[in-house]
Amino acid sequence: MPYQPTKLTTPSRQKHKVSYEQDKVYQLLDEAYYCTLSYSVNGQAFSLPTMHARIGDQLFVHGSSKSHFLQHMPKDQKACISVTLLDGLVLAHSAFGHSMNYRSLLLFSQPDEVKDEHLKMEVLKTMVNRVKPGRWEENIRKPTMGELKATLVLAFRIEEVSYKTRQGPPNDSEEDQQIDVWTGQIPLRLEEQIAIQFTTAS
Amino acid sequence: MPYQPTKLTTPSRQKHKVSYEQDKVYQLLDEAYYCTLSYSVNGQAFSLPTMHARIGDQLFVHGSSKSHFLQHMPKDQKACISVTLLDGLVLAHSAFGHSMNYRSLLLFSQPDEVKDEHLKMEVLKTMVNRVKPGRWEENIRKPTMGELKATLVLAFRIEEVSYKTRQGPPNDSEEDQQIDVWTGQIPLRLEEQIAIQFTTAS
Repeated sequence: MPYQPTKLTTPSRQKHKVSYEQDKVYQLLDEAYYCTLSYSVNGQAFSLPTMHARIGDQLFVHGSSKSHFLQHMPKDQKACISVTLLDGLVLAHSAFGHSMNYRSLLLFSQPDEVKDEHLKMEVLKTMVNRVKPGRWEENIRKPTMGELKATLVLAFRIEEVSYKTRQGPPNDSEEDQQIDVWTGQIPLRLEEQIAIQFTTAS
Repeated sequence: MPYQPTKLTTPSRQKHKVSYEQDKVYQLLDEAYYCTLSYSVNGQAFSLPTMHARIGDQLFVHGSSKSHFLQHMPKDQKACISVTLLDGLVLAHSAFGHSMNYRSLLLFSQPDEVKDEHLKMEVLKTMVNRVKPGRWEENIRKPTMGELKATLVLAFRIEEVSYKTRQGPPNDSEEDQQIDVWTGQIPLRLEEQIAIQFTTAS
């Protein structure tokens, strides 16, 4: 079942770029390492880029219990969560046709603090396994009760969400296509480089 | 001269991660392909990921003159512009120590519509050259007056801005460092893949 568009998630233009399919939303959330979390206080928008983790139909973010940004997030307002992955550069025959390929989503959702210790631990496990799949199961020290207390976890229901994408070659007019210049796409991908081992000074 | 911190750009915590150096701000703006532009309407935050281009001490974004998002941006409010580049994954001895390395900035600035045609053309040139350096000088068709009219360009002065970064190895306690598990950083980089040429159907 696709998500139901609402006033906040219905675009006024370029409707062909927008969809409400759950699998696309989940795939983007699971691939992207961070989201940009925004809210409004006294008519001023504030944003924070932060790691996220999805479990089922909920999106979680975490931070220090002392985080000013998380503490001051209005609980009676829908936060706006933006996730974007850049997929490529688009080189067209016309300057006007130059573009970028991307996948993005906007989620509007009220934050709900996670106080249940079991769920909180499950969220931290999911966060760690996002840094590296299976990492939680390796020989790392698991969170203490003190660390759990020092961590604030917020949950956002994934329901009021729209997905937007641009893919493929440039949209050039037939006339522009006669111009003799290289056109096409240069795909972009976030790639892991050679790891740097942490050596303890002793 | 570093930027002057204001109420909006002074962090309440982790001050060691924050700086106000212009060269760091400019370098991040020039390397990142897009920003997340947010504003508030009636207590609700809205965000849009969008390409940006810097010329001197101004940041520009552009879109369709019919763009609902750009048209409805409050002109008497500071927009919040967030730029983030992920630099790596940080694997620590403790779950709690897992992290990501990044560079980010937050810019608070009121939008100012660019109506001067010469500057508008300069902005479009800078945008195209961000897709590929030197692309404007290639044999691409330059914007017509009609395309220039169909494009809305907004300028933001780069003044109220803070830069935040985390780099380097995990911060493990000496006790945790005794645990036998691989720790370190996995650098991440957005890399160009093999280009796909656009072939005109004929």
